[in-house]
Amino acid sequence: MQIAIVLFDRFTALDAVGPYETLGRLPGARTVFVAERTGPVRTETGHLALTADRTLDEVTDPGIVVVPGGPGQASQMENETLLDWLRTADATSSWTTSVCTGSLLLAAAGLLDGRRATSHCLALDQLRRFGAEPTGERVVLDVKYVTAAGVSSGIDMGLTLLGRIAGDEHAQAVQLLTEYDPQPPYDAGSPEKAPAHLVEEFRTNSRFALT
Amino acid sequence: MQIAIVLFDRFTALDAVGPYETLGRLPGARTVFVAERTGPVRTETGHLALTADRTLDEVTDPGIVVVPGGPGQASQMENETLLDWLRTADATSSWTTSVCTGSLLLAAAGLLDGRRATSHCLALDQLRRFGAEPTGERVVLDVKYVTAAGVSSGIDMGLTLLGRIAGDEHAQAVQLLTEYDPQPPYDAGSPEKAPAHLVEEFRTNSRFALT
Repeated sequence: MQIAIVLFDRFTALDAVGPYETLGRLPGARTVFVAERTGPVRTETGHLALTADRTLDEVTDPGIVVVPGGPGQASQMENETLLDWLRTADATSSWTTSVCTGSLLLAAAGLLDGRRATSHCLALDQLRRFGAEPTGERVVLDVKYVTAAGVSSGIDMGLTLLGRIAGDEHAQAVQLLTEYDPQPPYDAGSPEKAPAHLVEEFRTNSRFALT
Repeated sequence: MQIAIVLFDRFTALDAVGPYETLGRLPGARTVFVAERTGPVRTETGHLALTADRTLDEVTDPGIVVVPGGPGQASQMENETLLDWLRTADATSSWTTSVCTGSLLLAAAGLLDGRRATSHCLALDQLRRFGAEPTGERVVLDVKYVTAAGVSSGIDMGLTLLGRIAGDEHAQAVQLLTEYDPQPPYDAGSPEKAPAHLVEEFRTNSRFALT
C-alpha cells in the first residue's frame, strides 16, 4: 500500500506529520511525500521545509491519499493540476483523507459532495459552501473519505484509520510507541472549551489567520 | 529569541514538529532547524526529510534549544561535534529542551547530571545511567531544562513552555489554533495503560525498536 501525503507551499507541518507518524506505520505501507515539484516545500512560517520526493505525475495510484491544510490551501483552491490529481488518485484509492483545511481541497475537487466531513473549526462554513455536510466531530468517516479537524487532529485520524485497516492491536502498539497519552497543560483546544474572547478574536481579526 | 531545533540522521519527525508547531509560535521568535550539514535530513523510516537550514556552526547562541529523539539518537551519543555544540549552546540558552530520547543526548553532553528529567518510557533506565534522575512524568521542568516523554509529548512540552514564557492566554490561543483537543481512539499511550503483552513485546523484542 502506498500512502501519498500531498505538500504545497505554506502547508501546516503537523497536519502532514501527524498522519505520517501514525498511519505511516501501517505494515507493508510506504509513505511518499508528493508535490507539483520535488524538493523542499515550505510551511506557512517559512521556518521549516519538508522534502517532496516525488512529483504528482510520478504517483498515479496511491492506496491512501492524505491532504494537509494550512494557510496555503487558499491558493490551491483553483489549482487544476492539484485538483485533477486528487480526482484521479481518488478514482482508485482505498482511502482519501484530509487534515484541517485539506478537506476544502477535497471539496473543491468535488470529492465531498453531500458527504459528512470536517475541517478546522474556522473553515466549517466554507466546507458547506463547497457541497459537504460539515460536522463538529474530530474525525469523520464517510465510506472511504476520512476527514479530520484542525492540525493536531491528524494524529487521531491516523490512529483511527490505522486501526480500521491493520486492527486495533497494531494501532495501540503505534499509540504506545509514540506515547500518545496526551496531557495538554490547558483545556482550550476547541471553540467550545477555549476562552470566549479568544474564539471571538479568531473568528474576526485573527492573529493566527488560517486562510 | 531564536529557537534551534536539532536534526540528525534517523530522528523521529513528530519529536521535532510538535515543539515547532507550538513553541515555535512564540511571539517574536524565529525557529531554525540545524544539523551538522545543511540540506535534507531523513527520519528513521527514510520516507520523510526535513530541511536543515543552518549548520551547527552557524547557530551559536540560540535562546531555546530543542533536541528530538528517534532511533538515530544512539549513533549520536559519541558524536563530539554535536555534544560540544549542545554544551556551548546550553551555556547561554534560556531553555534547553528535549523530546523522547533527545534527553539521552542532553545527558551524554553532561547537561542533566543530578537533574530530574524524562524520556521515552523505554529509555528511562538509560537516562539514569547517564546521571539524570528519571521521572515518569510527561513533561519535566528542572530550572531551565525541559524534557518530554515519547514522540507526541513534544506538543505538551511546547505548549507548557510557551505558556511559561508568553503567558497562559497565548498558549491557549495556540492550542485553539492547532485544535489540540486530543481524542485518541484508544487508551494505550503509556505502559500503564497499554495491553500488557504489547508493553512486554516493546521491552523485549520490539517490532518498533527505538534504539
